[in-house]
Amino acid sequence: MSNPASKAIVLLSGGLDSATVLAIANQSFDCHAISFNYAQRSLSEINAAKQIAKHYSVSHQIFQIDKGVMVGSALTDKSMDVPEFDDEEQGIPVTYVPARNTLFLSYALAIAEVKGSQDIFIGVNAVDFSGYPDCRPEYIRSYEIMANLATKAGVEGNTLKIHVPLIDKSKAEIIQIGSDLDVDYAATVSCYQANEQGEACGVCDSCQLRRKGFEALGIADPTRYI
Amino acid sequence: MSNPASKAIVLLSGGLDSATVLAIANQSFDCHAISFNYAQRSLSEINAAKQIAKHYSVSHQIFQIDKGVMVGSALTDKSMDVPEFDDEEQGIPVTYVPARNTLFLSYALAIAEVKGSQDIFIGVNAVDFSGYPDCRPEYIRSYEIMANLATKAGVEGNTLKIHVPLIDKSKAEIIQIGSDLDVDYAATVSCYQANEQGEACGVCDSCQLRRKGFEALGIADPTRYI
Repeated sequence: MSNPASKAIVLLSGGLDSATVLAIANQSFDCHAISFNYAQRSLSEINAAKQIAKHYSVSHQIFQIDKGVMVGSALTDKSMDVPEFDDEEQGIPVTYVPARNTLFLSYALAIAEVKGSQDIFIGVNAVDFSGYPDCRPEYIRSYEIMANLATKAGVEGNTLKIHVPLIDKSKAEIIQIGSDLDVDYAATVSCYQANEQGEACGVCDSCQLRRKGFEALGIADPTRYI
Repeated sequence: MSNPASKAIVLLSGGLDSATVLAIANQSFDCHAISFNYAQRSLSEINAAKQIAKHYSVSHQIFQIDKGVMVGSALTDKSMDVPEFDDEEQGIPVTYVPARNTLFLSYALAIAEVKGSQDIFIGVNAVDFSGYPDCRPEYIRSYEIMANLATKAGVEGNTLKIHVPLIDKSKAEIIQIGSDLDVDYAATVSCYQANEQGEACGVCDSCQLRRKGFEALGIADPTRYI
């Protein structure tokens, strides 16, 4: 009899990237998915996350983060407009959510300790990304070092690993990997301002990056547009 | 006219250490205190935090962390006994709460970004502590490095600092500093299992460390015992 798979904690937003990460992690780990309700503009993401977790038959927890923590972003503040895609844009965009990945990874770290897991998966990407500081490889490496100093597991010598299988992949490469693993991209929501039915705007950064990825591969994008 | 003080985010648990930290920070910063309801055993801590924040007339937010995040500790699980103080105890005790300081600091980091603050204060202490990995100086240093890579402020060159003014102080030294700053120690709750009225057990680690600190200084401890 083979050993049971080790447990991994997978951050699942309901988007294309995290669905692909779950498919990758699920090949070699016993996955537990976690999602967040942080007053983001599009709650259809959470419904997508539920559907994706169910598709892979993995356990799934959704945590509530108080309104007032991750504010000051066009993704959480409906009075701010989500900008249209701009190839020439420089710097950190208004869709940046303060300390989002740090907060998400810290929940994952607590759950990993509780469940005796040494493996956390997150779908950050430093290629087709939007200039977010908390998507860079140097950020992830420093989080991993901190996590091993922070926890009982780290002190006891069980090295905790933050897996970022998509960090250096283009959107097209991610979609190729996911397609090979039969990810149901129709269930994913990438749009920053999707409506309640999960229909996408087609004009925000995230919609445009997704669209270009599918186009580059010559694969039909199952996204439903408003 | 002098410049207005910079804003600092202060983690305020309602205990002796964090009350002292707030008194220190409040000397040179415009402080915003944050506390957490994380299903800890003693909710009287939160009432104490409210009272302390009010005493210093600082703004105060209390965040709710879902049950099920910080479990597996005698501080959050009422089916586990809080052990009595043991001088010979080795290793990480059962009162350790998984990833607690990492989660708390990550909320502080998000709030700091939102409020444009570059200064976070936390009352961790590596002398009279209980063997928690997330109270060690090397942990705090690594958190600070990570925080500067994680955030907009860090990327833009505004160095974010995690202040730990008590890290190398004995409990007696902390009480001396606080007494000089007129901290109202009667309002603080140190006990791991205080009752709703904020009365302390007198036998847990935290009660014993506090009692010894006051004794060493020859100052009367205003703690009310059950």
